[in-house]
Amino acid sequence: MTFPQTDRTKLKRLAKRGHFDRETVYGILDEGFICHVGFAVDGKPVVIPTGYARVEDKLYIHGSQASRMLRTLAGGVDVCVTVTLLDGLVLARSAFHHSMNYRSVVVFGRATLVEDPEEKMAALFALSEHIIRGRWNDVREPTDVEMKLTTVLCLSLEEASAKIRTGPPLDDEEDYGLRVWAGVVPMKLTAGEPVDDGRLPEDVPIPDYVKHYKR
Amino acid sequence: MTFPQTDRTKLKRLAKRGHFDRETVYGILDEGFICHVGFAVDGKPVVIPTGYARVEDKLYIHGSQASRMLRTLAGGVDVCVTVTLLDGLVLARSAFHHSMNYRSVVVFGRATLVEDPEEKMAALFALSEHIIRGRWNDVREPTDVEMKLTTVLCLSLEEASAKIRTGPPLDDEEDYGLRVWAGVVPMKLTAGEPVDDGRLPEDVPIPDYVKHYKR
Repeated sequence: MTFPQTDRTKLKRLAKRGHFDRETVYGILDEGFICHVGFAVDGKPVVIPTGYARVEDKLYIHGSQASRMLRTLAGGVDVCVTVTLLDGLVLARSAFHHSMNYRSVVVFGRATLVEDPEEKMAALFALSEHIIRGRWNDVREPTDVEMKLTTVLCLSLEEASAKIRTGPPLDDEEDYGLRVWAGVVPMKLTAGEPVDDGRLPEDVPIPDYVKHYKR
Repeated sequence: MTFPQTDRTKLKRLAKRGHFDRETVYGILDEGFICHVGFAVDGKPVVIPTGYARVEDKLYIHGSQASRMLRTLAGGVDVCVTVTLLDGLVLARSAFHHSMNYRSVVVFGRATLVEDPEEKMAALFALSEHIIRGRWNDVREPTDVEMKLTTVLCLSLEEASAKIRTGPPLDDEEDYGLRVWAGVVPMKLTAGEPVDDGRLPEDVPIPDYVKHYKR
């Protein structure tokens, strides 16, 4: 299944970087941690980073019910949500052809407030599992009060596209003779050694999903 | 020196996460690789990832002169540029208090086209050095034609702020007794082993700034 190409998602240049199949778009969304949410406040653009999760063809974001962003978006305004993964620094022989390898997804639409309690709880589960699978089972679940304090918004994945650059630098033919090192420095978001909370009792073991955390 | 707190940059909630001193804002900008640029097209928000560099109190972005984003921004429309660094996954004892450690900067303003050739070249130098210091010296500099094909925009850092979360989870007092592991999984963007371009002559050595690349 593919996303339709719209005026907004069709690439005007470098069309071969564009991808519209759901598998590619979903793969990027499922790997990222943070999305950048763009919307207008008093007619002016605002871009705010936040966590998110995908469940089938829906994207969920959440936060405090006091959040200006969530209250604005719940009003049904136009929104653009972008997720970007940096994969490498592309070092060409000329300054001009330097680039970065990346995978990004842009989603356009309007968010809706999730009011159904089951969908809301399922979204919070997904938001937790998206960050670290297995965690939800171990922790105290949200209380009714916490549920009321939490706003969850849903954005249908209807108008979306991916943009991807991979591979080596593409230099001008005459520059391949230059004696300049060229190639790619791969970049990756990696997890370090988990840090115990200072108030943890000594005999609480670290779960496998934390110890061996890997995206 | 600090940025003034405006209606847009002042934090309505979690005010202690807000930072307005230039040193903090500049430090985050100088560490990131990709910014997310938000602007309106036909009255609707668009958020596009791109590289950037800071020179003193100016932020530069660049790209093809055919880029829709750069052409729109060069028209002097309102723009919001956001840079986000993910520092850790914050695992609390309750689902509700899970969080992420991050540092982000939001800049508001209007971009201007850089037309002065010296400033334009200095910006391209900064954009290159921002990604990998020492590179510019080794590579073929832009030709006049390449300069013409490249658009550089400048955004003055006048209205900007940082938002930072650090440290352990903050659980409800009564949850500290739960036998649930809690703490932080640090996250970091790291460089892998450089990959030679396939058309590199065998005897071109890899420069130190690539071999020992570190942000």
